Amino acid sequence: MAQGTFYVVGVGPGDPELITLRAAKILHAAPVVAYFCKQDSMGHARRIAQAHIAPTTQEMRLAYPFTTEVSVKDPVYQTRMTAFYEQCAQDLAAVLEQGRDVALLCEGDPFLYGSAMYLFDRLHTRFETVVVPGISAMSGCWSQSALPMTHGDDVLCVLPATMPEQDLVRWLEKADAAVVMKIGRNMPKLRTALERAGRLPEALYVERGTQVEARSLPVAEHEGPAPYFSLVLVPGRKGVR
Amino acid sequence: MAQGTFYVVGVGPGDPELITLRAAKILHAAPVVAYFCKQDSMGHARRIAQAHIAPTTQEMRLAYPFTTEVSVKDPVYQTRMTAFYEQCAQDLAAVLEQGRDVALLCEGDPFLYGSAMYLFDRLHTRFETVVVPGISAMSGCWSQSALPMTHGDDVLCVLPATMPEQDLVRWLEKADAAVVMKIGRNMPKLRTALERAGRLPEALYVERGTQVEARSLPVAEHEGPAPYFSLVLVPGRKGVR
Ligand SMILES: C[S@@+](CC[C@H](N)C(=O)[O-])C[C@H]1O[C@@H](n2cnc3c(N)ncnc32)[C@H](O)[C@@H]1O
Ligand SMILES: C[S@@+](CC[C@H](N)C(=O)[O-])C[C@H]1O[C@@H](n2cnc3c(N)ncnc32)[C@H](O)[C@@H]1O
Repeated sequence: MAQGTFYVVGVGPGDPELITLRAAKILHAAPVVAYFCKQDSMGHARRIAQAHIAPTTQEMRLAYPFTTEVSVKDPVYQTRMTAFYEQCAQDLAAVLEQGRDVALLCEGDPFLYGSAMYLFDRLHTRFETVVVPGISAMSGCWSQSALPMTHGDDVLCVLPATMPEQDLVRWLEKADAAVVMKIGRNMPKLRTALERAGRLPEALYVERGTQVEARSLPVAEHEGPAPYFSLVLVPGRKGVR
Repeated sequence: MAQGTFYVVGVGPGDPELITLRAAKILHAAPVVAYFCKQDSMGHARRIAQAHIAPTTQEMRLAYPFTTEVSVKDPVYQTRMTAFYEQCAQDLAAVLEQGRDVALLCEGDPFLYGSAMYLFDRLHTRFETVVVPGISAMSGCWSQSALPMTHGDDVLCVLPATMPEQDLVRWLEKADAAVVMKIGRNMPKLRTALERAGRLPEALYVERGTQVEARSLPVAEHEGPAPYFSLVLVPGRKGVR
């Protein structure tokens, strides 16, 4: 019996209309849809794709063993996450071996810091795999904020806020345009780095971009904590022609 | 009378199915659709959006005064391009002032090196403007090539191949993952830069990604010229977990 196809499907940053025709078509046809989520919640990607999942579609929840309870620096984190991804890959493989297609939902674009890559890495050599790009969080955020990012010869750097402050400063000094992802508890460090690099005045903070509760404001005016779904945009320096 | 709304609409990298539901909806409703093109051709963005443009939709061709006949370094280039964008903005403004909506089509994502930004810059303060993100060429290319780009703390740099070789080398040395755009006649320089930065072995060349004649091969095996619609992907260094 033929094996199923593994579809890795980007569903965009939040607005359910920012899904591609291709992704919608695959989700309508897929007998099984899988997605990462927290133990006690529906999952962000699943919510975005809601309109395209039939009641008869089989759903595979891939619930993270923990979210913020264990620190990324704790060696237990790596071990347990590896075991988790291994188990997910085995579960998906079992379905694919039965000849059924599986669509794995991913927020934004799957290959830009997506957890889906950890399953792609484990399954793509064993099963026919198709990756469907999605609108990335950064594209959703700069479009909604009406902030043109890169003109002409601008270099764009996409930076995880998890790096040390000094590295952030160096990147922010060199980049023409920058996007800083994975903010959360790194917000105070990022703000200092933007200030030190002289980029604070033009830096825009965007929270839950394209989602119902989206908001955005200059980083200079931002106070308090930042949620997981937030990023910072620093537009390019080379403007209007 | 109320003014029309200016829609700046990303149509993705080439595959007509890689357009969002939102973009399709706007194109179906728009009384006027505008797009850049060469003097004697249909225009790439227009071709991608074909299925969503009704025969009754009014089309505004914005034909570049020249493409490769005048060098970017020639001062005439800047002057004539500025005059061209001014004229386009005036033409669109005239329609918007009549109270009709205009949808400006853009390849990929509008705010990532898109010419649409030159019209956005001129019109967004005068008219209600809505920007619809699109799948960028890089997302289309790395998805089709099944090449995961950024894991964990990887930094991604998006580089125009137009910069001097020495600058390319420095960026390629520092970046974890890199995308090099605007290749064309810069291919020999880029190849040397990749070699000098030690990144040649993993660099993938992608031509007309997601389009009908898409092809991709390692940069190390690439010979001859590169067309306008080509880019190079260098995946991140921090792999599987
Ligand atoms: C694991 S990464 C996934 C990125 C996603 N694959 C993409 O293409 O954008 C998660 C980070 O993306 C950013 N993010 C995702 N969705 C967002 C949204 N709607 N608004 C702002 N930031 C978002 C945040 O910085 C978050 O920490
Ligand atoms: C003016 S930029 C526009 C980029 C576009 N706005 C985006 O979001 O990707 C044009 C460059 O994009 C790249 N490009 C656009 N479409 C492509 C495709 N289908 N395949 C490969 N590269 C492409 C090429 O490097 C080209 O020189």
